[in-house]
Amino acid sequence: MKKDLFNNTYVGWMEQGPESNIVISSRVRLARNLQNMPFPQRLHEKTGLEIINLIKKAWQADDKFLLKDMDWLGFDQLSELDRTILMEKHLVSPGHAQSSKSYNGLLVNHDGSISIMINEEDHLRIQCLLPGLQVQECLQQANEVDDILEERLDIAFDEQRGYLTSCPTNVGTGMRASVMLHLPAIAITGQLNQLVHHINQLGMIVRGIYGEGSEATGNFFQLSNQITLGQMEHDIGSNLVAMTRQIVQQEQILRDNLNRHMRIQIEDRVGRAYGVLTNARMITSNEALTHLSDLRLGVDLGIIEDISLSVLNELMVAIRPAHLQRIAGSQMDALSRDVNRAKVIKEILQSGHNSVQTADE
Amino acid sequence: MKKDLFNNTYVGWMEQGPESNIVISSRVRLARNLQNMPFPQRLHEKTGLEIINLIKKAWQADDKFLLKDMDWLGFDQLSELDRTILMEKHLVSPGHAQSSKSYNGLLVNHDGSISIMINEEDHLRIQCLLPGLQVQECLQQANEVDDILEERLDIAFDEQRGYLTSCPTNVGTGMRASVMLHLPAIAITGQLNQLVHHINQLGMIVRGIYGEGSEATGNFFQLSNQITLGQMEHDIGSNLVAMTRQIVQQEQILRDNLNRHMRIQIEDRVGRAYGVLTNARMITSNEALTHLSDLRLGVDLGIIEDISLSVLNELMVAIRPAHLQRIAGSQMDALSRDVNRAKVIKEILQSGHNSVQTADE
Repeated sequence: MKKDLFNNTYVGWMEQGPESNIVISSRVRLARNLQNMPFPQRLHEKTGLEIINLIKKAWQADDKFLLKDMDWLGFDQLSELDRTILMEKHLVSPGHAQSSKSYNGLLVNHDGSISIMINEEDHLRIQCLLPGLQVQECLQQANEVDDILEERLDIAFDEQRGYLTSCPTNVGTGMRASVMLHLPAIAITGQLNQLVHHINQLGMIVRGIYGEGSEATGNFFQLSNQITLGQMEHDIGSNLVAMTRQIVQQEQILRDNLNRHMRIQIEDRVGRAYGVLTNARMITSNEALTHLSDLRLGVDLGIIEDISLSVLNELMVAIRPAHLQRIAGSQMDALSRDVNRAKVIKEILQSGHNSVQTADE
Repeated sequence: MKKDLFNNTYVGWMEQGPESNIVISSRVRLARNLQNMPFPQRLHEKTGLEIINLIKKAWQADDKFLLKDMDWLGFDQLSELDRTILMEKHLVSPGHAQSSKSYNGLLVNHDGSISIMINEEDHLRIQCLLPGLQVQECLQQANEVDDILEERLDIAFDEQRGYLTSCPTNVGTGMRASVMLHLPAIAITGQLNQLVHHINQLGMIVRGIYGEGSEATGNFFQLSNQITLGQMEHDIGSNLVAMTRQIVQQEQILRDNLNRHMRIQIEDRVGRAYGVLTNARMITSNEALTHLSDLRLGVDLGIIEDISLSVLNELMVAIRPAHLQRIAGSQMDALSRDVNRAKVIKEILQSGHNSVQTADE
């Protein structure tokens, strides 16, 4: 299983799901901490390992498939490249990927739909990540995992404030829900700023693909809830779904309009993107993402027929530095990364198949 | 024969010739006027038709293949589209193409290598146009035609000043020689301004593809002699050839350098050009020419193997408005011209064949 996640560009959320022409994936994350233990940023190795042992014991003691299906990855056993690969697949946060501490680690199931970061910002961050618009399904699965673990772990919970977390913004439900959106029509028609303003007013946040501080290249956006306190988990999920449905509808109407009134221009844009992606000899990750965005729109509008959205999801991850390096089987400077990226894109687009095999296999 | 020139994108100079990886074509033009006749800009119809009759008689009276091979095209019998097609093939000047006067016309042979504009700026402009670097061959053929005609026509010639011409800059030999050059490596390495300065200092002129006032899009340049007075025809030709050989050598060295030291970057540039040309849904003539220029470099450097330089020469003409309109078989606005241009380019590049057939055939 581990081998698959590290030596393969594929991960579960790349499949098709509800509304997946616009909503790439949904994610729910629950932050939990053990009672009477210092938060991770104050941990020393001894207590850190103690926490890991408690969590491992709780995980191993349970018989349900949900936990049986998971594998333990100790971060001191993983190379930096492997940790970055987990990050590029959205299975761990960028910050967590940088740590090689013995008390950092990850529990993750076969397709990466369930993962638990250990001693990231909190002792436990239970994440469920599914294709398309499935926020409530994510919440349900994350809750199941949480319920099992809470049976066997002493979790810090305050009747007044709810779950206690390392960062005050997470106190309460400890929940963050997000969806990854692709909004090219809203961007092309110049309605993006207005939308972001509207979203912020409603207490939600828009970010780039790799969360806080990352760019929204290619018109891919992560929409997430801001408020964790004073709302029920289910309501946080419903609010996010309602907002997402509104945005999906707007994007859909604008795509239909583009399709009706600017079909040739869109065909041109999509065609050129395909032409560059299949003929460039070197390409940066930002440029590639921009063209992949156009291609994605082209697939949805039936301009491109032999490429699936799943393949495009996979490409978005395959073109990232660590995945490229794993595929090439060697370290690379920026130029050869750009050259390899062009090669990988060409191969994947022209074969139309998922799951590029890597040099190791 | 006429049918071929009007309903076909092909013309003789598109073939391969000496140095044709850098020198697309060579041209010599001799300006001649009949004695005791007003220059064309002062002509009325009666005298104009008289001149035509004299010239036609001289042409018909001769038995040599060179003149037998020519056809007469009266400009009042041609549509504006047909005249523009002749211009786009470089068989008549842009100014001449705009006239539909009864005393304007063209004598032209089967492959367009010999043509005589009647009553353009001078009564006769004898032009020879050949593929590659063949300035002296052009001069020789133009002289042969001139000799035949001068046997039967009373040409204005002054012992002191030489051939008399409508514009004083042509007095003397009445000769202008030019070569069409493709200089992408000189342009890419930023040495173009210096070269143009050097050329001007030596009394020659650099212009865009369609002569005076046209842009040098795609790094295609027309190099021609400036001085017609006080030099022998043969020397004008030799000077131009010597200068051209110098430029060809410089371009060749720079191409070799690019090939050795920046192969990947050049492959990238060429690949992207090919990708856009074969996938765009609409394209302007300037953008197309820029990409065709990169493709031409790619063919010369062996990056692109299944496209010939002749096909690229043909494409440079096929993408012009009149040829596009002839191919489409209908008048077009700017947008549908861009759409049709993209279609024609895709077809020619993907078939790799010369001579796109037109809607009329």
